Amino acid sequence: MPYVTIEWFEGRSGEQKQEIAEKVTEVLSEVGGMPPDQVWIRFVDSPKSNWAMGGAIQGGGDGALGPPD
Amino acid sequence: MPYVTIEWFEGRSGEQKQEIAEKVTEVLSEVGGMPPDQVWIRFVDSPKSNWAMGGAIQGGGDGALGPPD
Amino acid sequence: MPYVTIEWFEGRSGEQKQEIAEKVTEVLSEVGGMPPDQVWIRFVDSPKSNWAMGGAIQGGGDGALGPPD
Amino acid sequence: MPYVTIEWFEGRSGEQKQEIAEKVTEVLSEVGGMPPDQVWIRFVDSPKSNWAMGGAIQGGGDGALGPPD
Amino acid sequence: MPYVTIEWFEGRSGEQKQEIAEKVTEVLSEVGGMPPDQVWIRFVDSPKSNWAMGGAIQGGGDGALGPPD
Amino acid sequence: MPYVTIEWFEGRSGEQKQEIAEKVTEVLSEVGGMPPDQVWIRFVDSPKSNWAMGGAIQGGGDGALGPPD
Repeated sequence: MPYVTIEWFEGRSGEQKQEIAEKVTEVLSEVGGMPPDQVWIRFVDSPKSNWAMGGAIQGGGDGALGPPD
Repeated sequence: MPYVTIEWFEGRSGEQKQEIAEKVTEVLSEVGGMPPDQVWIRFVDSPKSNWAMGGAIQGGGDGALGPPD
Repeated sequence: MPYVTIEWFEGRSGEQKQEIAEKVTEVLSEVGGMPPDQVWIRFVDSPKSNWAMGGAIQGGGDGALGPPD
Repeated sequence: MPYVTIEWFEGRSGEQKQEIAEKVTEVLSEVGGMPPDQVWIRFVDSPKSNWAMGGAIQGGGDGALGPPD
Repeated sequence: MPYVTIEWFEGRSGEQKQEIAEKVTEVLSEVGGMPPDQVWIRFVDSPKSNWAMGGAIQGGGDGALGPPD
Repeated sequence: MPYVTIEWFEGRSGEQKQEIAEKVTEVLSEVGGMPPDQVWIRFVDSPKSNWAMGGAIQGGGDGALGPPD
């Protein structure tokens, strides 16, 4: 432990995931006192068509809430 | 918040997801008193071959427990 | 299936949960075509002190994003 | 209930999932006293490129922590 | 990996959890080919009042779907 | 989105959670290009008695894998 799940829109690159994994692991280790090798992270890439915010499925044109693609 | 996850067999259409998202958001807002724009919903479409009920992987022919496809 | 998880701030009553469960089950059954008795819902009540939005742990006084308590 | 989620690297076969589903259902039923038909299991197959352990995205050559593929 | 989550009604003892953890780890190792020390399991004990099946919050008297307490 | 879940042993303070929330939000915003106010984080504090690693429920004396308490 700990086990971290990051659920987001698909579209992030492997380089972004690697950098995020390193930095989140560092934060949990330094602030939370956990051995880095015990930090597991799983990324969950979902299409915008599987997310709704405010009752609206995302990805329908404006992208107001979305990340840069 | 709230964050709602709906895990089910794949196969529902975008129109069904949109209608479900609208209605579930409305229910949470009206009954739970939460601002609609703070309701996030994520759909998780899984193949039947990744679900087991009663020890049996689904999708093997009878479909007794499954949704209409 | 389906399996629905509703993660939110603690504080909703049993009556609210019962009403939400009924209505969400009805929506999934009517719109998604799933047998009502196959709809499972789990509520996850978390203290505001375990949620962060925009980098800020919730519950710290203003409650701008929170539900009525 | 219960609802069991098994998150792992993709690559396990349908036969492995079926055998695991049967045996895990049996264990929960015998040890936990739950009716087998009330045991639901969902497998979540993730590419190694979506897992990090110790700050390192998996699948990068050595596979020290990975399963046989 | 793998990471296993077991969500159920609260009420199981520490001895039951230990026995289930051992046996599920053994199944995943023997059938799935994963090193036992890489199997993480997390139990999530929920009150019946946080589960609904078929639109009904559980624990309201009959207990038809519930485990022995 | 994104929605981040951090599952760990209970015992971290509110100050640690606040600092982790800030830094993880900053990482996701800077590296992933997501608006900070759209980053939601939920901490899940579990007793060691609800975690098993390598088939062994944690917290049983040695604490080899555990965090400082």
